[in-house]
Amino acid sequence: MSNWEKNIRKVVPYVPGEQPKILDVIKLNTNENPYPPAPEVEKILKEFNVDSLRLYPDPTVSDLVKAIAEFYGLNENQVFTGVGSDDVLAMIFMTFFNSDKPIIFPDITYSFYDVWADMLRIPYETVPLDENFRIDARKYYGENGGVIFPNPNAPTGELLSLEVVEDIIKNNPDVIVVVDEAYIDFGGESALPLIDKYDNLIVVQTFSKSRSLAGSRVGYAMANPVLIKYLNDVKYSFNSYTMDRLTIEVAAAAVKNREYFEETTRKVIKTREWTKNELSKLGFEFGDSKSNFIFARHPEMSGQKLFEELKNEKVFVRHFSKPERISDYLRISIGTDQQMETLISVLGRILCLKSI
Amino acid sequence: MSNWEKNIRKVVPYVPGEQPKILDVIKLNTNENPYPPAPEVEKILKEFNVDSLRLYPDPTVSDLVKAIAEFYGLNENQVFTGVGSDDVLAMIFMTFFNSDKPIIFPDITYSFYDVWADMLRIPYETVPLDENFRIDARKYYGENGGVIFPNPNAPTGELLSLEVVEDIIKNNPDVIVVVDEAYIDFGGESALPLIDKYDNLIVVQTFSKSRSLAGSRVGYAMANPVLIKYLNDVKYSFNSYTMDRLTIEVAAAAVKNREYFEETTRKVIKTREWTKNELSKLGFEFGDSKSNFIFARHPEMSGQKLFEELKNEKVFVRHFSKPERISDYLRISIGTDQQMETLISVLGRILCLKSI
Repeated sequence: MSNWEKNIRKVVPYVPGEQPKILDVIKLNTNENPYPPAPEVEKILKEFNVDSLRLYPDPTVSDLVKAIAEFYGLNENQVFTGVGSDDVLAMIFMTFFNSDKPIIFPDITYSFYDVWADMLRIPYETVPLDENFRIDARKYYGENGGVIFPNPNAPTGELLSLEVVEDIIKNNPDVIVVVDEAYIDFGGESALPLIDKYDNLIVVQTFSKSRSLAGSRVGYAMANPVLIKYLNDVKYSFNSYTMDRLTIEVAAAAVKNREYFEETTRKVIKTREWTKNELSKLGFEFGDSKSNFIFARHPEMSGQKLFEELKNEKVFVRHFSKPERISDYLRISIGTDQQMETLISVLGRILCLKSI
Repeated sequence: MSNWEKNIRKVVPYVPGEQPKILDVIKLNTNENPYPPAPEVEKILKEFNVDSLRLYPDPTVSDLVKAIAEFYGLNENQVFTGVGSDDVLAMIFMTFFNSDKPIIFPDITYSFYDVWADMLRIPYETVPLDENFRIDARKYYGENGGVIFPNPNAPTGELLSLEVVEDIIKNNPDVIVVVDEAYIDFGGESALPLIDKYDNLIVVQTFSKSRSLAGSRVGYAMANPVLIKYLNDVKYSFNSYTMDRLTIEVAAAAVKNREYFEETTRKVIKTREWTKNELSKLGFEFGDSKSNFIFARHPEMSGQKLFEELKNEKVFVRHFSKPERISDYLRISIGTDQQMETLISVLGRILCLKSI
């Protein structure tokens, strides 16, 4: 071993989620949208001024910030953008979670919260979900260094009502509360209207799910101008140019088409409810997901086995072997009607063959 | 003040470099390439499969990694990519600079090294340049936690020979040595051939200068497969999807056109040498820059004054008020022949009016 090896950061080996390259698979494993981005995106690419790519992008990302602010009826100084919501969230951790007290988040939740906390040496504690995989708001009272939770939660899909979200915010006035709303557009009520009422609230959303732009890497935070300014100060202080010129224009064009956004999210919701119904008939158990996925298990077959059988049939879903409490569950993204019909038919066959 | 304000990260307020929106300025302030990206980029945008943007990008960025490896005659496991070389460098700091001993870099150099060290709580020491703004290799011997320097250095443009670079690497066998070659294609000799000989060497380059893609945010590191694997482990452990689908394809297409790359860098070099000659005639003093900028001062006018006079004439160059040692210098990016002719003529007028 070379001497320099002792100074290498030790990380938990991680293999990114499967992105199968074969084209004839049904890909329901990374919560992508089954519908293409808004038609305006194609126009942007066709008419893009290629020469401009030789110049650094606008560090304030103003075209996109303006488009997002207009969509939500906000001022531009209430919006912060980043390269995917992962980038936005990591920046929030870095900017606001600098207390000696632990930040808190659910024990079963988005898998990167503890990773960023470890990376930035932020102390943290996890709060157990109840027996139905729900967040118990009362467990979020008390001293801490900050609060973050997704709503709906991932990978469970469980939604908190706006009243309960407000209750958590109200009971943590001395720290920043982050509501990670990656999946809010599929049936939840956003905490966005509360940013004027609570100066400690940050709402984070993404273009990867309801806006069909996972491939473009765009996330954003909305909060009062004081918090947004702090975020921008930290961002500019160590990397001014992160979002590229093409992405800024693509995302700004996409967000302007409200009708397309509403139509595609409505379709995903409709397909989700149909899928729930069919999964019930097959004997699956699951909560009332308000996201673009369903977190389900079958009492007669292990999660690992179901995952593998589906993969053999070229249907990719997500299975988490840890923690054990969720190891019998599959996280199934909502695809097109046709994809979900195939899923149901394949599942029917798998379960039927097993019972023979 | 709210209670949560005490936990906010304190940063040095920073205003990103000027990106003037008016179109009739001569922009020589951020070292961009005056020529457009390779013509293949336009084709990529016109023919891009827009539907694919709904899917997450390939976390291994394999199309681009492959194209870079082919360009340099490397294996794919010797190449790491990031969202601009800032992203690549920050990832290197995080992965390899975890010693208790300070990392070392020049006192006058790229302004983000100390920022990332502060952010990641890495101890560091700066090594003074000599009286001609040159790096003295002997000052880089001795115990440290890692070494990083740009070659050519920024903002001076001074180039180290490959022998001197090798000398620094050879004398630091127990730590990682990073050669930041953002400007190497404009007349320097890359340390790339040394990555097989020294297992502690990382060479970092960027698409922002010689490849005319500052607006796309692409940087890369080249080293032996062991170091590249460590970098990928750290990257995947906390953010798998950073480079977007469009950028991957745009950059992969651009790097394949070797002829265009060589032609445009040759033009920049030729214009730089012409500009040096003209600046000399005007009485400017500067080193023998091998980058796409010239770092120059005039004995009869302060840097601040020259900067402002040029700005009044819609010519933007870069001026650093700190440290004081460089406060009389301007960093002038190399534009087209026509832009540099205008610069010289404007400078002539400014200096002439002053002497009347």
